[in-house]
Amino acid sequence: MAYRRILLAADFSEHGEQVIQRAQELAKKYAAELGIVHVVENVPIMDSSYGPIVPFDIDLSEQMVESARKRLTEIADSLVIPQDRRWVEIGSPKVEIIRIAKEWQADLVVIGSHGRHGIGLLLGSTAASVIHHAECDVLAVRLRR
Amino acid sequence: MAYRRILLAADFSEHGEQVIQRAQELAKKYAAELGIVHVVENVPIMDSSYGPIVPFDIDLSEQMVESARKRLTEIADSLVIPQDRRWVEIGSPKVEIIRIAKEWQADLVVIGSHGRHGIGLLLGSTAASVIHHAECDVLAVRLRR
Repeated sequence: MAYRRILLAADFSEHGEQVIQRAQELAKKYAAELGIVHVVENVPIMDSSYGPIVPFDIDLSEQMVESARKRLTEIADSLVIPQDRRWVEIGSPKVEIIRIAKEWQADLVVIGSHGRHGIGLLLGSTAASVIHHAECDVLAVRLRR
Repeated sequence: MAYRRILLAADFSEHGEQVIQRAQELAKKYAAELGIVHVVENVPIMDSSYGPIVPFDIDLSEQMVESARKRLTEIADSLVIPQDRRWVEIGSPKVEIIRIAKEWQADLVVIGSHGRHGIGLLLGSTAASVIHHAECDVLAVRLRR
């Protein structure tokens, strides 16, 4: 019944520290293994004065992945997570988080949940989607501004 | 940072025992207060050979609430939850769970999450809706058949 494998879905957002701390705390309380995943969305859309831009620049994607790996390494190092429990994936956050949780046989996913204002409406739905489709428990950590 | 008030959203479904146990276990681990809420939906729809029936029979609603109170009392007694942390509400589960969580200032809601097959599609959305709108953390416990 106790959680044995806890997967932290890190989104590197401003208030993501709360999610990290909660996952770490739960892993401690349950003496569970902690894993970490970050998903780089495959279609980054940037706002410009001329409207949204979808960059097809391969270098940019590589830069994003490289930068994500760096940030993930920092977090994972601070949490003393071994190399084989660190994942940086490219694609849909929902799909990739669910896939990694299944493959690693996580029994709990810890994920940030944004409010329902502005971009929050979109981001919040990742947590909700993961709940709909994951085969394990999901803790949505409410992120505060 | 530690959870102080954990609200168990009990739906009395077949596999609801998992949700109860998880809420109890977390309350213990965090030395948190445990509260319990059950929502009787205000528009019960029953299947018949002639299609769905919406009963407007006041006695039926009262019977449902009475039966819910009885079941909730059994669970709350077994969890040693004091009277003032037990709620039986009538209405939309999503709305009432969020309202009670806010009024009681819960910092974690523990709720069952059904699969996405058949009725699960509908039931699952309560957990997802609570995540979208609650001001606190939400743990969705995956119910297994």
